[in-house]
Amino acid sequence: MSVSAEPADALVIFMPSGRRGRFARGTPVLEAARKLGVYVESVCGGRGICGRCQVLPSYGHFAKHAITSAAGHLTPANEVEFRYRKKRALPADRRLSCQARIEGDLVIDVPTDTTTIGQVVRKRAEARDIVRDCAVHLHYVELPPPEMERTLGDLDRLSAHLLSTHGVELVDYDPSVLATAQSALIAGDYKATVAVHSDLRRPAVIGIWPGYREQAFGIACDIGSTTIACHLVDLMSGRTVASVGASNPQIRFGEDLMSRVSYVMMNNDGRHALTAAVREAVNALVQRVAGQGGIAAEDILEATFVGNPIMHHLFLGIDPTPLGQAPFALAVSGALALRAVDIGLALHPGARVYMLPCIAGHVGADAAAVALAEANMGADATLVVDVGTNAEILLGNKHRLLAASSPTGPAFEGAQISCGQRAAPGAIERVRIDPITLEPRVRVIGSDLWSDEDGFAEETTAFGITGVCGSGIIEAVGEMFLAGIIRSDGTIDGTLEARSSRIVQDGRTFSYQLWRKPHALSITQADVRAIQLAKGALYAGARLLMERLGIERVDRIKLAGAFGSHIDPKYAMIIGLIPDCDVSCVTAVGNAAGTGARMALLNRGHRREVEALVSRIEKIETALEPRFQTLFVHAMGFPNSTDAFPELSRAVQLPARAAAPGNDGGPRRRPRTRG
Amino acid sequence: MSVSAEPADALVIFMPSGRRGRFARGTPVLEAARKLGVYVESVCGGRGICGRCQVLPSYGHFAKHAITSAAGHLTPANEVEFRYRKKRALPADRRLSCQARIEGDLVIDVPTDTTTIGQVVRKRAEARDIVRDCAVHLHYVELPPPEMERTLGDLDRLSAHLLSTHGVELVDYDPSVLATAQSALIAGDYKATVAVHSDLRRPAVIGIWPGYREQAFGIACDIGSTTIACHLVDLMSGRTVASVGASNPQIRFGEDLMSRVSYVMMNNDGRHALTAAVREAVNALVQRVAGQGGIAAEDILEATFVGNPIMHHLFLGIDPTPLGQAPFALAVSGALALRAVDIGLALHPGARVYMLPCIAGHVGADAAAVALAEANMGADATLVVDVGTNAEILLGNKHRLLAASSPTGPAFEGAQISCGQRAAPGAIERVRIDPITLEPRVRVIGSDLWSDEDGFAEETTAFGITGVCGSGIIEAVGEMFLAGIIRSDGTIDGTLEARSSRIVQDGRTFSYQLWRKPHALSITQADVRAIQLAKGALYAGARLLMERLGIERVDRIKLAGAFGSHIDPKYAMIIGLIPDCDVSCVTAVGNAAGTGARMALLNRGHRREVEALVSRIEKIETALEPRFQTLFVHAMGFPNSTDAFPELSRAVQLPARAAAPGNDGGPRRRPRTRG
Repeated sequence: MSVSAEPADALVIFMPSGRRGRFARGTPVLEAARKLGVYVESVCGGRGICGRCQVLPSYGHFAKHAITSAAGHLTPANEVEFRYRKKRALPADRRLSCQARIEGDLVIDVPTDTTTIGQVVRKRAEARDIVRDCAVHLHYVELPPPEMERTLGDLDRLSAHLLSTHGVELVDYDPSVLATAQSALIAGDYKATVAVHSDLRRPAVIGIWPGYREQAFGIACDIGSTTIACHLVDLMSGRTVASVGASNPQIRFGEDLMSRVSYVMMNNDGRHALTAAVREAVNALVQRVAGQGGIAAEDILEATFVGNPIMHHLFLGIDPTPLGQAPFALAVSGALALRAVDIGLALHPGARVYMLPCIAGHVGADAAAVALAEANMGADATLVVDVGTNAEILLGNKHRLLAASSPTGPAFEGAQISCGQRAAPGAIERVRIDPITLEPRVRVIGSDLWSDEDGFAEETTAFGITGVCGSGIIEAVGEMFLAGIIRSDGTIDGTLEARSSRIVQDGRTFSYQLWRKPHALSITQADVRAIQLAKGALYAGARLLMERLGIERVDRIKLAGAFGSHIDPKYAMIIGLIPDCDVSCVTAVGNAAGTGARMALLNRGHRREVEALVSRIEKIETALEPRFQTLFVHAMGFPNSTDAFPELSRAVQLPARAAAPGNDGGPRRRPRTRG
Repeated sequence: MSVSAEPADALVIFMPSGRRGRFARGTPVLEAARKLGVYVESVCGGRGICGRCQVLPSYGHFAKHAITSAAGHLTPANEVEFRYRKKRALPADRRLSCQARIEGDLVIDVPTDTTTIGQVVRKRAEARDIVRDCAVHLHYVELPPPEMERTLGDLDRLSAHLLSTHGVELVDYDPSVLATAQSALIAGDYKATVAVHSDLRRPAVIGIWPGYREQAFGIACDIGSTTIACHLVDLMSGRTVASVGASNPQIRFGEDLMSRVSYVMMNNDGRHALTAAVREAVNALVQRVAGQGGIAAEDILEATFVGNPIMHHLFLGIDPTPLGQAPFALAVSGALALRAVDIGLALHPGARVYMLPCIAGHVGADAAAVALAEANMGADATLVVDVGTNAEILLGNKHRLLAASSPTGPAFEGAQISCGQRAAPGAIERVRIDPITLEPRVRVIGSDLWSDEDGFAEETTAFGITGVCGSGIIEAVGEMFLAGIIRSDGTIDGTLEARSSRIVQDGRTFSYQLWRKPHALSITQADVRAIQLAKGALYAGARLLMERLGIERVDRIKLAGAFGSHIDPKYAMIIGLIPDCDVSCVTAVGNAAGTGARMALLNRGHRREVEALVSRIEKIETALEPRFQTLFVHAMGFPNSTDAFPELSRAVQLPARAAAPGNDGGPRRRPRTRG
């Protein structure tokens, strides 16, 4: 009641949130942040052990005073902080918020790179900085040992401690933790580290280890019909530690999605077999990626998954049959939060899973992840295409976002092509055809030389020349068109037989012999037709979305996925795979689905973002649109439309004719991985 | 915008909550209740199918008007309601709130017997009315079939429907439902019944069935060290449909709790073996009780469990070792909400479990359930005693509640007694000894005759006379004391050998021969000592709590559990098992732990109540109290204290001496089950 001579409270403002409050002098900055609900990371709960609660006392105008230095407004750096400066890279301008105490009015910046121990590194073209705001947090706790007078259970005391010391409210316990937590507490003499998972639901203790621990991992996984990719991410730093991929073993039940759905429909236990196959494969990948990262699968505390609707449903054990026929009803479209054990995953026993939402019956969580990764659109109309057996197509600007899926079939992946093969050493990936002689030059995966350069034969002996991969087929067809071998309706011109022995009659149609030794590799009329169908479907899907958005041309095109990384955008435009666009505005964005999965893994905000994004996406069902058929028919020829032509020809003229070896206008970017 | 001649809104007040609001005329009463957050049960969501949304339009003073009849203020009863009046017992004064529409100002009573289809029946002495407010609710839904234009998944549409039509917000899906819900929806042509579980966490859909369903069951289970009891409860009516019991198979690992803890400590896989044993037993009981109730185990949607701390921990798979030694630290004391599958229970795949909280290291969830069942205390000091291998003792009034556990050992259950056996046909349960001749008369389970009545021999031939059960031992020792055979220090008086051949020397001590043919059944000196230890511990515990509460005598005593139902309170007082009290104020309350478990099953409010109760209970650890030792030593003799004596002798004089057969003062209540 008595007003003493004590100094008044100090005003503290936290940036960038702008939250402010008055605190007694001597209050640790971390405690002030907690009281205001400002999130400052801390594993050790303010004991000066983890060094993660760094803040930046900032200078600037403040209320009516201008603070030009934080000096005098915070206690000076103490021994703990000096030790961290030396040993663990605490920058000179930063303070540990658990050590620094408020002495006067202050502005405190909470760094957005909440990870202060290691920055996310830009490793590949597709790598992007992801601000870390994980659902999993580690908290180091020191409980008093139990006493007979205290009748609360150890876990109840832990809950109370997490609330009072770490600000974690109303914590639940994972069933796996319930059975083992007390043993862990006892083993660590009542000093332990707990992992608390908090996303939309009540926070839950999902793991507990004796003593101090500073290690938490997650995986981001993209389940494709053909390939499953799995990235191991250090949740404490945000770094992707290792990435592995493997074939989807469901392939033995059916090459494409529809044949797998048929398998489920025809076989009583088909769904369980397919579900078991994909879960086993994911578990095997987890073991491999953990091994590469030098950790155990039990160190993985959270996982995010993306995949097309059928993969998504089969992974969850849901019957995909309704997705195989109109009206293509998803069992569930929204994002899902699950326990890993409930879907048969062998991670940490308490590990959690976040499934990104599906967009529509044909547009899955993989497309949602692409949208998340690439949705930061400006005023420009941007087209994002992810080519697989189905092509996911997103088109939008900052106001609207449209999505559709087009049934391209597997031609772009080399399937259904007579000489097609997957991208591997020995596969032809680049093709140039002399428009006069009709003689080809090629480049194969595994060598940097063109076939007419010295040493090509020697370099390629090891693996031989075995087939043509997806990007090679695109270029072959594109060059055949440019050289006049293919007419605009897609027919191989048989009259050229007279001019070149490369043109070979093949029943009632003709083929182009791309390679001769040791095996002949030919582009047949049927191959060209398969490419026409595939590119027609993709192009028609893109055009349909453009019409819906009311635009005549797109400003940028982003090619996502492995295929998008390998094809030369120029040839994609020559054959009319993508709409006309300034070639310099066509970029490969790599594994955008994987990036989206990693974003959702590392930042809860991105989960809310993708959920909101999916609900506002305008879904176009190509199968429902008569207009799609019209566009499709028109998109089958070469080129698709006259309006595309001028740009296209301008784009291709120079490089197609500049035949100087080593300066051929081929892609400068050498993709490091191949799908 | 235009104010028309439409009648003004009507004011509606719901009782007993008193919530009120204005609604447009024509609004169904159910909708008005929903909007005000007044809970009116409805399975069918207002379609006039389930008949559960009954309300009572009430008469009375209202605002400034006196409404003498609801006529004119509600639409008249319609065809649906007339059908329900005829077929399904809708009382004449009640209305279906989904059919009745507001026509004018109204007071609406929501009946507290929210179950309107069947009333809870008072089946046994211990049965009590429990107002139903289950965590599980059934909702009948009719979704539009999926269409290609609707890209939301079926479950997402179901969530939206549950929100808009049933007012269930932010629903989660149990993993088991996730995989099967769409199939159920399709099977029922998008008409289905869903079970939504909502307690403290987000509501979750835990089950889904095609079409309309009006069936939901739960079990309440009491896991004792010796016996496991399981009650099947119809969640829609509140009725207990069937009850079964079985021995706890953990007995093969150790008769008492401490020997089971030792088993866990000594054997590597001991914990898992004990956990598996109790879970198997519970699953077997579930099958049995479901069979008796004519349902399948999959129809059981929720379960509540009580048990002492070691049973509680072992059932959950928690190492009980810390409970075997000071400081007797519980791993977890708070109430727990779990999925049944996570603790290996084979109920409905989405079934939920609520574990009542434990009170302290020696005072478990069974005692908490007893407290819940009997805690409605008034100004009187009430002692509640639940006798098992440990006796749980609760003492309190409306202001304070104290709890302790006393190590009585298994003597009262007939173990450690030379002629002891469990309560079964052939066991002596009543004993009278003539103080002059020292000749006994007995009654055995399975016959209503005393041994000196005609026909006794014939009636008991079928099973023979095989031993003495717990209540028989209490009476035998009590009568031996009253007849002067036992001295006040508990010694059997050998000098009586001269007076009666029933007194037999037995080494250095003497025995009393209670029965002779076909086998001799004797109460030995060691038997008397075991009873002295047991009753001393129980009495000392009760006295300790009385001292803490600052009272010299208790106003009421409630004897809980099977043992409490069987013993004659008079003899309990004669031997000094319980403190002195007016005998008419000593009552058996039956299986109070089971009642508490059923209360928590049927009413979420009781869950909050028991949680609050446990946190305010003052826990007394007898092992920590030197005073307990003192009291224990003093409580070993007969009688315990002189102040108990006058009351005691007054209570016993008449019946003990009134020897007329058939009017012996024995208990009128015939218990139906025996533990």
